[in-house]
Amino acid sequence: MPPAPDRAFASDNAAGAHPAVIEAVLRANSGHALAYGADDQTAECEQRFSDAFGTQVVTRVCFSGTGANIAALATAMGSMRGPHHAIVCTNWSHIAADETGAPERALGTKLIELPSLDAKITPDMLDSIAHLHGVQHHVQPGIVSITQPTELGTVYSPSEVAALCTRAHEMGMLVHLDGARIANATAALGGDLAALRSFTVDAGVDVVSFGGTKNGALGAEAVIFLRPDLAEGSEYVRKQVTQLPSKMRYLSAQFNALLHDELWIRLGAHSNSMATRLDEMVRDVTGVELGAPPEVNSVFPRLPRASIAPLRDWCFFWDWDTHVLQVRWMTAWDTTIQDVERFAAGVRTLLSEPKSDCRGR
Amino acid sequence: MPPAPDRAFASDNAAGAHPAVIEAVLRANSGHALAYGADDQTAECEQRFSDAFGTQVVTRVCFSGTGANIAALATAMGSMRGPHHAIVCTNWSHIAADETGAPERALGTKLIELPSLDAKITPDMLDSIAHLHGVQHHVQPGIVSITQPTELGTVYSPSEVAALCTRAHEMGMLVHLDGARIANATAALGGDLAALRSFTVDAGVDVVSFGGTKNGALGAEAVIFLRPDLAEGSEYVRKQVTQLPSKMRYLSAQFNALLHDELWIRLGAHSNSMATRLDEMVRDVTGVELGAPPEVNSVFPRLPRASIAPLRDWCFFWDWDTHVLQVRWMTAWDTTIQDVERFAAGVRTLLSEPKSDCRGR
Amino acid sequence: MPPAPDRAFASDNAAGAHPAVIEAVLRANSGHALAYGADDQTAECEQRFSDAFGTQVVTRVCFSGTGANIAALATAMGSMRGPHHAIVCTNWSHIAADETGAPERALGTKLIELPSLDAKITPDMLDSIAHLHGVQHHVQPGIVSITQPTELGTVYSPSEVAALCTRAHEMGMLVHLDGARIANATAALGGDLAALRSFTVDAGVDVVSFGGTKNGALGAEAVIFLRPDLAEGSEYVRKQVTQLPSKMRYLSAQFNALLHDELWIRLGAHSNSMATRLDEMVRDVTGVELGAPPEVNSVFPRLPRASIAPLRDWCFFWDWDTHVLQVRWMTAWDTTIQDVERFAAGVRTLLSEPKSDCRGR
Amino acid sequence: MPPAPDRAFASDNAAGAHPAVIEAVLRANSGHALAYGADDQTAECEQRFSDAFGTQVVTRVCFSGTGANIAALATAMGSMRGPHHAIVCTNWSHIAADETGAPERALGTKLIELPSLDAKITPDMLDSIAHLHGVQHHVQPGIVSITQPTELGTVYSPSEVAALCTRAHEMGMLVHLDGARIANATAALGGDLAALRSFTVDAGVDVVSFGGTKNGALGAEAVIFLRPDLAEGSEYVRKQVTQLPSKMRYLSAQFNALLHDELWIRLGAHSNSMATRLDEMVRDVTGVELGAPPEVNSVFPRLPRASIAPLRDWCFFWDWDTHVLQVRWMTAWDTTIQDVERFAAGVRTLLSEPKSDCRGR
Repeated sequence: MPPAPDRAFASDNAAGAHPAVIEAVLRANSGHALAYGADDQTAECEQRFSDAFGTQVVTRVCFSGTGANIAALATAMGSMRGPHHAIVCTNWSHIAADETGAPERALGTKLIELPSLDAKITPDMLDSIAHLHGVQHHVQPGIVSITQPTELGTVYSPSEVAALCTRAHEMGMLVHLDGARIANATAALGGDLAALRSFTVDAGVDVVSFGGTKNGALGAEAVIFLRPDLAEGSEYVRKQVTQLPSKMRYLSAQFNALLHDELWIRLGAHSNSMATRLDEMVRDVTGVELGAPPEVNSVFPRLPRASIAPLRDWCFFWDWDTHVLQVRWMTAWDTTIQDVERFAAGVRTLLSEPKSDCRGR
Repeated sequence: MPPAPDRAFASDNAAGAHPAVIEAVLRANSGHALAYGADDQTAECEQRFSDAFGTQVVTRVCFSGTGANIAALATAMGSMRGPHHAIVCTNWSHIAADETGAPERALGTKLIELPSLDAKITPDMLDSIAHLHGVQHHVQPGIVSITQPTELGTVYSPSEVAALCTRAHEMGMLVHLDGARIANATAALGGDLAALRSFTVDAGVDVVSFGGTKNGALGAEAVIFLRPDLAEGSEYVRKQVTQLPSKMRYLSAQFNALLHDELWIRLGAHSNSMATRLDEMVRDVTGVELGAPPEVNSVFPRLPRASIAPLRDWCFFWDWDTHVLQVRWMTAWDTTIQDVERFAAGVRTLLSEPKSDCRGR
Repeated sequence: MPPAPDRAFASDNAAGAHPAVIEAVLRANSGHALAYGADDQTAECEQRFSDAFGTQVVTRVCFSGTGANIAALATAMGSMRGPHHAIVCTNWSHIAADETGAPERALGTKLIELPSLDAKITPDMLDSIAHLHGVQHHVQPGIVSITQPTELGTVYSPSEVAALCTRAHEMGMLVHLDGARIANATAALGGDLAALRSFTVDAGVDVVSFGGTKNGALGAEAVIFLRPDLAEGSEYVRKQVTQLPSKMRYLSAQFNALLHDELWIRLGAHSNSMATRLDEMVRDVTGVELGAPPEVNSVFPRLPRASIAPLRDWCFFWDWDTHVLQVRWMTAWDTTIQDVERFAAGVRTLLSEPKSDCRGR
Repeated sequence: MPPAPDRAFASDNAAGAHPAVIEAVLRANSGHALAYGADDQTAECEQRFSDAFGTQVVTRVCFSGTGANIAALATAMGSMRGPHHAIVCTNWSHIAADETGAPERALGTKLIELPSLDAKITPDMLDSIAHLHGVQHHVQPGIVSITQPTELGTVYSPSEVAALCTRAHEMGMLVHLDGARIANATAALGGDLAALRSFTVDAGVDVVSFGGTKNGALGAEAVIFLRPDLAEGSEYVRKQVTQLPSKMRYLSAQFNALLHDELWIRLGAHSNSMATRLDEMVRDVTGVELGAPPEVNSVFPRLPRASIAPLRDWCFFWDWDTHVLQVRWMTAWDTTIQDVERFAAGVRTLLSEPKSDCRGR
């Protein structure tokens, strides 16, 4: 095998923090500052988010992606009349599949998981639950939660989001956007603030979970209420769901670094491009089965069974769906073209070997 | 010892059902009727409650007192903006002390238990929690829940309730009245519908748990929303908290019997009067320590330690506070004057005996 | 149209109470009895359930089917180590689809809804969630909840239940059986206590929700812990989830009447036979599309669109799936052969009419 | 007024991060590392905690103090049989008073708040709730949660903790210790690892919330299960309550810096000594009313009403109890003797001024 890449393709949260983030934290570490958000870094962060979205938003900095989702959903649910409202999402959604039941625990709320092939929700899919309306034996749909980019690496177009928001609002629902990798979607849809706004404020989204951790932060997420009236009570809710940072300045500083000069979009664009390059380099390797080219920073190949373990031993990545021998290769803000080239070379080498040992599998 | 009473003084929920209630259930048991409230008995019941309160109320029939409290509080909390609101009550309140944590379980909500000597809440006591307001680390008071009559057998005057409602509303809170024994309070405060209204609608109460079970029903309680706008979503909430009766006609019929011709008030007045008579008959017995005369249907004497067990073996009642040798004698709608006379005679006999055996206790 | 049946085909919970149930309640209404289960009727009821299941069970009488499910699941979940366990059920299950989110509210627990064509769960379907095991981002399957008969009117064979229990137990899960219509399943599987035991105790089920309300009771359900060790804490849990009846004797008496001389099984057998007769009588009517003959007491025909409203106006029943023009006709313990004959005649009459008005629909 | 101190006395969480913590984070920021705890820093951190406690513990790194408390309590509650267990604490406890109802939200569990003058719980106070045991209408005490040092700045002696643990365990309860400022208690009780162990492992405590944030970290807390068997499921629970850090290495690295060479104890000792010095310097100032000398890093003086605002304007601190004009001055790891001297000088200057303007207040 050729030399392994310096950085594996496990996940973007395996990457470290960007130097600008580190510098910002160091700068913030000066003297005393009141806790719980009454600090200059947080005030700056709030302004930066309003600038980015092009409208006055309410920002609530949080620790984690799951935490931001819970704080966003609990606040939004608090604006509903009664605890019998439900959250509508897909079977792939992080809130449904990968948060160990945090929404049900914190909200006491049912998740209605719509089956979806591409991890997107369409207006028609909302129609399929319209019959629940007005029947006391059924939960009442209250919030639609979409993920952008989705857990399958697909990206909603702005018009898809807008159409969904329109239908959701017609049905009396709010729309939450889980943007744990929102930088990658923004990069994929144009790579500027107009792109960000196109699938959020302009499309009618009500509240966003805005991720920093997977995009070069040490650890920082935020709930952005695009409609400030929906933020009522959000500071209490954040505390109640254990997401109020004590020394908030250190989290806000990370966002200040990322938002400065649109660094966050550039990092997202870079990791996207690395996935595209990786896809291109292995697409013709016999045994690598690929779907459509990546829209963001992940590649989901199917591989010959016998190749998976040795390839992973050489350079780590995670399984995606073991039933169909599908794995996930994910790039990060710090993935280099050398990493991609080495990895592609390793894939090519391994899959070109005589596969006498994988017959019949 | 003299002959024991036919009915003990354990509790009003040890009594059976009034014949008129039984008859109403039998009458309701005719043919088919749609479940979940779409039946004639329930329509009649709803009208009867509006008539009794003298205003258009929304009625939600429930199974149990704890259930009605939960349905009332969960619906009212659903009208608050956010899950960070709390319920304010006394340390004696049934919801805090005797419901095995049902409110915290069903609502995920904190109960703020105000210490109270007489189980009542005054406006001043609300002032003691005013400092919580506006601080993100604290729950925000959302609902005041009072019990009428209280768990200690005291009765709020209409002006006391009105003053509390005024202060609560000024502080942005709603007022819930737990009326598991509302008939006894109504009887104590005048014994007619004007009395009922004086401490509920007229005083500014928002939502009532209206008890039937302790007053001659087989088992029937109801949530009465005195402000219909607060009832929004209550049918869903009732179902979610497991309080939606399937064959609702049989519960509604019980209320129809009790509400007819104010039977419920007469039953409450009777049990009150039996407690008054009992208090009068034992007040001069040496060893029986009594506080103020009973306002409703319970007497809380302190007794010599050695007398409690033999008296209970002869005619059952429950301890109230074993630390101070206090017990509770409770009358019911069917307690007879003969029951009271026999019980008083037994108390007198037992306490007049030479107490050589209780020295040193 | 011919004369309408005296009883419609809306639901078995639209039927009244059986005379023996009424008599038992009247008998129980004698003098005082301690509340909350310390009464003779409840002791008798507990013994009758142990006799019926042929083993020492723990019985907790509850108000409603949803309530019994919640009490059963909350107690069973309490035996799990940690709040991160989930309940596995089908998308058709009452707990998932028809309880307004009560399980999520009361337990804070995720429901994993397995898609199922016949509303049954097979061992293979459990295998499909085996990958969740041991991953901290996923809820851990804790309880499998099956419904017998299912919400689609199908019946698990004893060996199907046994195979599922074996697999569930191997995976460290408990098995709950929602028996809101357990009488109908018992009747379908042999019609005696051996039949009851064959798909419960003998098959390895851990806890049962035993329904009375849909089978001739005024309103009575029970949680039956087939493994008494699992009942630890169940009396507290029942209270916490608002399902502790105050005057329990009146609910226990209903079960005593139903369990006496296996009345409950006979009632279930009767309603099953009425559904079978109805199916037979309309099967050859043009326009009535039927699947397999009914196993229990419901028929799910598809009807011509134009016939549904007039037929319902004449004799009420509920829609099942409006997308495919499917309705549900349900028989009850008191459905008579005359009711069936009249209804079948009405169907035949209506569907034989010239359908000039439904062209193009 | 003299020059204001460089650092105010608002709180120890207003202080920044210690240089050693910053260095550790910088060192950890090298290359890729798997997320969610599968990294070298976390392995080291776990070992360091076992070394510190002198026994094999299970460590779960968390984001915040509230979060660690919730993760600890939810895991411990998960070892109880059933959801009807309650948490016993004081009315002063952070979990009861300052977490916006997070425990009730996340656990659905009642908190029993014992009134306490010094914010400690004694074995006798547990006896006062013994009567709850075995009664289905009452929650059952499951966990005692104490804070060390307490919210009032008092410190349990090791023997006090041991006596409480003994009684709690006799009553079937577990003991949780909220150690948000555990360094200050450790310093106060001897200042070495033996001191730490004396009031935790040696005393019988079951689970500890171990704070780093208030003691020089950027933000890092940990749940330490002193009995590893109690940690079962804790990794799932941590995720479910939104406290699983993605890039955990950066939190673990902070603990590695603090635990190295007992830096954390030295920082605690320093802030304690600064409070002691402050107390000594203002104790003789007329108008400053002080209780017992500080045991840890806070001083709670009562001040003349007119002095509070100008003093705060000059150098910030928080009110403690406005009803009695009591404020809180809190020192931190980085408070200097110069800060203390300047502040004491300011207090002396301000309170020596003619107070013509505060008559009658």
